Amino acid sequence: MPLSDSSREPSLEYAFHPRSMAVVGLSPDPHGTWLNRMYLQAPLEAGFKGPIYPVNRKGGHIGHIRVYTSLSEVPEPPDYVVSCIPAQQTPDLLEECRAVGVKVLQLYTAGFTETGLSSGIKLQDRLLEIARRARIRLIGPNCMGVYCPDWGMSFSPDLPKEPGNIGFLCQSGGNAVFLIRSAAARGLRFSKGISYGNACDVNECDILEYLADDRGTKVIAAYIEGTSDGRRFADVLSRAAAVKPVVVYKGGYTEAGGRAAASHTGAMAGSEVIWDGIIRQTGAIRVNSIEEMIDMLVALVQMKRPKGLNTCVVGIGGGASVVATDEMEKAGLRLPPIPPSIQERMAQIIPPAGGMLRNPIDAFPLSRLILYKKRAQGGKSGNAHAGDKGWSDFMSLLENWPDIDAVIFHFPFDTPPVPASNWAAATVEPVLTAVRTCHLPSAVVFHSIVTDASWRESRKMQAICLAEEIPFFLSLKGAAESIAHLHQAGQIAKIWSVEKQH
Amino acid sequence: MPLSDSSREPSLEYAFHPRSMAVVGLSPDPHGTWLNRMYLQAPLEAGFKGPIYPVNRKGGHIGHIRVYTSLSEVPEPPDYVVSCIPAQQTPDLLEECRAVGVKVLQLYTAGFTETGLSSGIKLQDRLLEIARRARIRLIGPNCMGVYCPDWGMSFSPDLPKEPGNIGFLCQSGGNAVFLIRSAAARGLRFSKGISYGNACDVNECDILEYLADDRGTKVIAAYIEGTSDGRRFADVLSRAAAVKPVVVYKGGYTEAGGRAAASHTGAMAGSEVIWDGIIRQTGAIRVNSIEEMIDMLVALVQMKRPKGLNTCVVGIGGGASVVATDEMEKAGLRLPPIPPSIQERMAQIIPPAGGMLRNPIDAFPLSRLILYKKRAQGGKSGNAHAGDKGWSDFMSLLENWPDIDAVIFHFPFDTPPVPASNWAAATVEPVLTAVRTCHLPSAVVFHSIVTDASWRESRKMQAICLAEEIPFFLSLKGAAESIAHLHQAGQIAKIWSVEKQH
Repeated sequence: MPLSDSSREPSLEYAFHPRSMAVVGLSPDPHGTWLNRMYLQAPLEAGFKGPIYPVNRKGGHIGHIRVYTSLSEVPEPPDYVVSCIPAQQTPDLLEECRAVGVKVLQLYTAGFTETGLSSGIKLQDRLLEIARRARIRLIGPNCMGVYCPDWGMSFSPDLPKEPGNIGFLCQSGGNAVFLIRSAAARGLRFSKGISYGNACDVNECDILEYLADDRGTKVIAAYIEGTSDGRRFADVLSRAAAVKPVVVYKGGYTEAGGRAAASHTGAMAGSEVIWDGIIRQTGAIRVNSIEEMIDMLVALVQMKRPKGLNTCVVGIGGGASVVATDEMEKAGLRLPPIPPSIQERMAQIIPPAGGMLRNPIDAFPLSRLILYKKRAQGGKSGNAHAGDKGWSDFMSLLENWPDIDAVIFHFPFDTPPVPASNWAAATVEPVLTAVRTCHLPSAVVFHSIVTDASWRESRKMQAICLAEEIPFFLSLKGAAESIAHLHQAGQIAKIWSVEKQH
Repeated sequence: MPLSDSSREPSLEYAFHPRSMAVVGLSPDPHGTWLNRMYLQAPLEAGFKGPIYPVNRKGGHIGHIRVYTSLSEVPEPPDYVVSCIPAQQTPDLLEECRAVGVKVLQLYTAGFTETGLSSGIKLQDRLLEIARRARIRLIGPNCMGVYCPDWGMSFSPDLPKEPGNIGFLCQSGGNAVFLIRSAAARGLRFSKGISYGNACDVNECDILEYLADDRGTKVIAAYIEGTSDGRRFADVLSRAAAVKPVVVYKGGYTEAGGRAAASHTGAMAGSEVIWDGIIRQTGAIRVNSIEEMIDMLVALVQMKRPKGLNTCVVGIGGGASVVATDEMEKAGLRLPPIPPSIQERMAQIIPPAGGMLRNPIDAFPLSRLILYKKRAQGGKSGNAHAGDKGWSDFMSLLENWPDIDAVIFHFPFDTPPVPASNWAAATVEPVLTAVRTCHLPSAVVFHSIVTDASWRESRKMQAICLAEEIPFFLSLKGAAESIAHLHQAGQIAKIWSVEKQH
């Protein structure tokens, strides 16, 4: 929402929805630089809802856009300023911000406490002192800033323009980019998020508090390297996790990792035991990589919640089925045996030789039958309704199996002796058609991808999943752990009411 | 080597180097099937060193190749026969094999003990009884068979034709294909290997024993779902692991996984505790996925062995450096701080702002400098020798740091705010040039790849690594665990003398 001037202290609303923006330190160099892409091209393409003013002492033009020589030359006082100038010059910039009435200063600029040098620490202290007096909020320093697609705030040209329901806070800029890109590839979208670096003013607690209250945010994702106020953090996390799912990745959880975090964002990484205790006690969900975080978000946002851990695993290939079973069981899922009555009816669909009709189910013979049938019909896809002797009938059988809480279909792309380009579409598509109508919590896993052919074929199948809103994973482990967490988290915090996106 | 007739019992030599081969059950269907690709196209393209005779009761032709109607019609008695016919017909085929003097029968055919049906169990027992009397070795049933590139034995058209120094045994055919393809993508090649399925005759012990004695095999990789003779297995593994590195992946190590293994290959999966004990006591290296196995093989075959666990981690990006450090420390590697004297000299190469000059090192500012320098020079690559103020000088500094046993360079492709197509080549190539001349054990990690652009760029960089014989990994965890294992395994079994391939 747009902001009206008011007497209250500049809040994070000015960070997510500034009326205008200036970027200080962009180069008029016609070749362009990373910074131009990040802070001019990205918000312009994302449709930033206000004017953007590049500022550089040298003036000039970037493309057709005029570069102003100072903040005071800019036609209106910008709510939000991005600093891309050297650290030593930032106190002067902050004074200039005060003079023109800026609300938020985001510092891409690095070279502060994270250097470990006393000069850097002093400089950051000085910035904070000026900002507090001037009632300007600082984001960073040493960060990428704000991503808020519904307002056109962005720091990379290739991030999605459409908004969604996940809010994030990410102490690392690179991890923020990776988080958004990875999520985008899986059909996840964001309400708003901040890469907040050294957290000298706006910190993990402020953002978490904001996102907990934010109506557009249904799920929170947090990558945090440290906190300077453990008590407040535990308190804020606890309140946030009580109202919506919060997924936390603590970066720098080993001893050397903690030292690396200090060197990266000046973070006080703290003890692993304390962090783990806080995360568990508050009911937040802990993950240990961006990949795990994305998988957990896919489960939370896109999947129906399983009532229990009983899972049926259906795949292509015996070895892959054994591997899948180990991963499922290790993650805490259970694979109960198929009741004889259902097994008998299944045997009428799937021939026994070269398959496995227990749980896991190796449906390779069924896939081959369908593949040949399809080829005989000149490539036209077969039936996908009751009585098809194919995936639709198979799915009905699963739905009649009362003990099952979830179904996982998995496709290993590089295990068959014939390249994926020869079989993937014809084999996977009929399953996706059936999964779409499945009433049980279900997901698809595309895995064991090492060749270019398999990458390409898998991307085509992913595109179908995205269009049909079928949740998919790219590793068996990721699927298993996320689905187990999804059930367990639901047990802990029954209050959550994340609606399925579709 | 080719075989001469002798009075000794047909040995596995006939499996790896048969003088001629017949494939029973191939279809003359002009559209071709998977089986034609696997057992005709694959060995023909791999240059099988003898005639291949397709056999099918119906006769006819596959392309220009004549299909014989029976084994006795084939011009010479084939040493090696592949069965692709239904299970019920296999005893008759075996009798026919005896009549013409076949040495090895490999059964792709499934439908035996793995079905759990008494009819399947009886059928397999009957086969074994006939084979023992006829002195014919059986491979399988329910398997893909033999891969021996120097003799043109193959079961998939896209497996490498060049031989190498890794021998494998793999109870699953799909996992065998995935193992070979994954290895191929990393520059690894094989001496010989068998996908051996139900192991009714030729089993894990026989193959392990053979590969332990095989001169062309320097490292052994084993995917095993179960054994029927634990005592012999422990004994054979122990002898093999004493003479060369053996990497073991026990499939079906959870309870449900064990049941799945029984359903897949009729394997007696056994207790996880006993398996773990046996693998540890024999000095073999245990892994828990094909991905981990490939990483371990890369380390064993391609890397110099580190004298200790002290590792320097150099990468692009702060968040990625924190993540990398956690993974390294979790895997057991140590990241000692850089000595002040070296740090000072490093600071003359890498500017402090936006980087990290401890250990891990975030060399982002150096990469940008080189990128800009390169662009200013019109894309020509800069110096890569002493005094270049770039990676070459940086590498010399690392080599002067006496405490360091290994260096890991890592490149996250999807964390920078600008797509990889804009920076990857110019950023990564100068590092690879320097790594090539590095005297320390070193490796490169390409990770955080989710977009098509990053996949493509990373493949280009992988191609350079393959050409320059630089070991690379595709996950930080995989690199860290393999390098830690490499050091530890070397401590246990000093007897190994795996030569570097280059």
